[in-house]
Amino acid sequence: MLTLSKIPPLDLATQSAARARQDMLTKPPGSLGRLEELSVQLAAITGQPRPSVARKAVIVMAGDHGVTAEGVSAYPAEVTPQMVLNFLRGGAAINVLARQAGARVVVVDIGVAADLAPQPGLEIRKVARGTQNLALGPAMTHAQAEEAIAVGMQILEMEVARGLDLVATGDMGIGNTTASAAIVASITNQPVARVTGRGTGVDDTGLARKVAVIERALTLNQPNPRDPLDVLSKVGGLEIAGLVGVILGAAARRVPIVVDGFISGAAALVAAELTPEVKPYLIAAHQSVEIGHRILLEHLGLRPLLDLDLRLGEGTGAALAFHLIEAAARILNEMATFGEAGVSGKDEG
Amino acid sequence: MLTLSKIPPLDLATQSAARARQDMLTKPPGSLGRLEELSVQLAAITGQPRPSVARKAVIVMAGDHGVTAEGVSAYPAEVTPQMVLNFLRGGAAINVLARQAGARVVVVDIGVAADLAPQPGLEIRKVARGTQNLALGPAMTHAQAEEAIAVGMQILEMEVARGLDLVATGDMGIGNTTASAAIVASITNQPVARVTGRGTGVDDTGLARKVAVIERALTLNQPNPRDPLDVLSKVGGLEIAGLVGVILGAAARRVPIVVDGFISGAAALVAAELTPEVKPYLIAAHQSVEIGHRILLEHLGLRPLLDLDLRLGEGTGAALAFHLIEAAARILNEMATFGEAGVSGKDEG
Repeated sequence: MLTLSKIPPLDLATQSAARARQDMLTKPPGSLGRLEELSVQLAAITGQPRPSVARKAVIVMAGDHGVTAEGVSAYPAEVTPQMVLNFLRGGAAINVLARQAGARVVVVDIGVAADLAPQPGLEIRKVARGTQNLALGPAMTHAQAEEAIAVGMQILEMEVARGLDLVATGDMGIGNTTASAAIVASITNQPVARVTGRGTGVDDTGLARKVAVIERALTLNQPNPRDPLDVLSKVGGLEIAGLVGVILGAAARRVPIVVDGFISGAAALVAAELTPEVKPYLIAAHQSVEIGHRILLEHLGLRPLLDLDLRLGEGTGAALAFHLIEAAARILNEMATFGEAGVSGKDEG
Repeated sequence: MLTLSKIPPLDLATQSAARARQDMLTKPPGSLGRLEELSVQLAAITGQPRPSVARKAVIVMAGDHGVTAEGVSAYPAEVTPQMVLNFLRGGAAINVLARQAGARVVVVDIGVAADLAPQPGLEIRKVARGTQNLALGPAMTHAQAEEAIAVGMQILEMEVARGLDLVATGDMGIGNTTASAAIVASITNQPVARVTGRGTGVDDTGLARKVAVIERALTLNQPNPRDPLDVLSKVGGLEIAGLVGVILGAAARRVPIVVDGFISGAAALVAAELTPEVKPYLIAAHQSVEIGHRILLEHLGLRPLLDLDLRLGEGTGAALAFHLIEAAARILNEMATFGEAGVSGKDEG
């Protein structure tokens, strides 16, 4: 049985102090819009009136999906381990964007269906060699889903020990938009066709097949929308479960969480159903092209920071959003106040 | 009489090469959305198949506005020189965001209505001590507007000589949303009320007064919408004219231009009316809160990169967008191809 960490409430006194400071800085109050809101959120989460986000990590969970046997993806399943090796050599998009952001990339094999050799930068924590085909039965047992959540929590603790001010979620797993759409359809009670997109790029026939596969899976497995662990087990994925653990673990440690796109969002949805207290710790990085993502974010009450037509995953949108979050912290920390700068305030003229 | 530099056409061969490379990188084609488009635009502008944006500058033009006598701003006019000093001491939002982006800030007194002491970092190129009150007559003579455009071009050339891969436009000038709204209303032929917002934060009464002042100015001065220099002179501002020069000068030098918000956008509008060839060189940084900004961007055919409820100016939105533009360049330059990484392509499974 999984034990979830207690998530502390936001620090409201520090939140107020940050808001008061924003109004003293040399700009019209509110004129930096969402940067101001973000800075206040960071203060409330961390309890620090002048929060720093210097130490950043993207945790990329990789796992395979039995449902790829149904032809739901434009890419073959062997791309999952190939891309893990690409991450470790630094050639993938997430490596480029994390380098730019000054963030480390932590790659976790939580369920790749191939043997990856131990090597620097790779955490091998395989719960299973991929999930079972959710179109034929449950993707995972409850025990496997719980184990994967626990792995996510352990990885997060390991990163906290290395020093962590801000964490982003990332994913790799051919077939994982199928699992994510199934989770979103179940939890938000939306028709499958409304939350299922083209993933890495299936054509119209592929999309119709994907919708049919998810509908079949939901009918067959009957996940209970009131039991998020049941939904996660039956139609989710190992990397998604791992990210649930990362999210819950980070909130318990007062570390702000930058949620990437659709797959990370599905993990955030499950985490918030398990523990609603996690919600104020979440920052939605971007609006993905995946059609279900908008519904997912609305359900979580999150407004994305970026809207750049991204649909890659890996944590790429979150790595891009790091910059805006760091900008928010720097504005709060580094700008002069009206008093310090000798600038007249509003309506003083 | 102003002589405009010739703007070269985009380099279409390099554009195609960049697009072809994007499709070879280890991600589904198109999955990085607007970052891919941006990288291709950078290649087409610069003629470099692997463009770099390492050397960046924000050029902040500062000028005063006679129309502040009409009570159109929430802040007194003395804030313009006070904020210039804040820029020079590094305490303003633009300083914080430019430092984060690794960009230099170039502050130009092109028309501040106060004497600023010569000091490092300040370019004193005063064309006049502020504009005349556009509610009572033309804000500038044609000769003054031309001189201010020429100053912008000279500043741009000076920055090119220091090394410049990417330039952003910034502004400081209490009263300048009034001038910008007048320009936008005239050139786009929209009702004043549809393009006039609260600027730094006027209340409902202030907004109604601002709209009435602009309507009066347009009726009185009769700027000719077919003659952008006439519009700029009669209802514009010195800092806006300076930015027109920066924009035209940068395009002539094949330097991509990141256009900040409403004031910078008004300058881009004038530049594009003077020389439509400038348009493909423009990158719209963000969607401002100012209501006229959407109409302005639509008129220019530009889609903003960010939408963060900003309304500060100074080049702050553009400095934030630098990160996305640099990300686009790095993706093109640093990611591994499918061949290099040994990753299977689409539908190879």
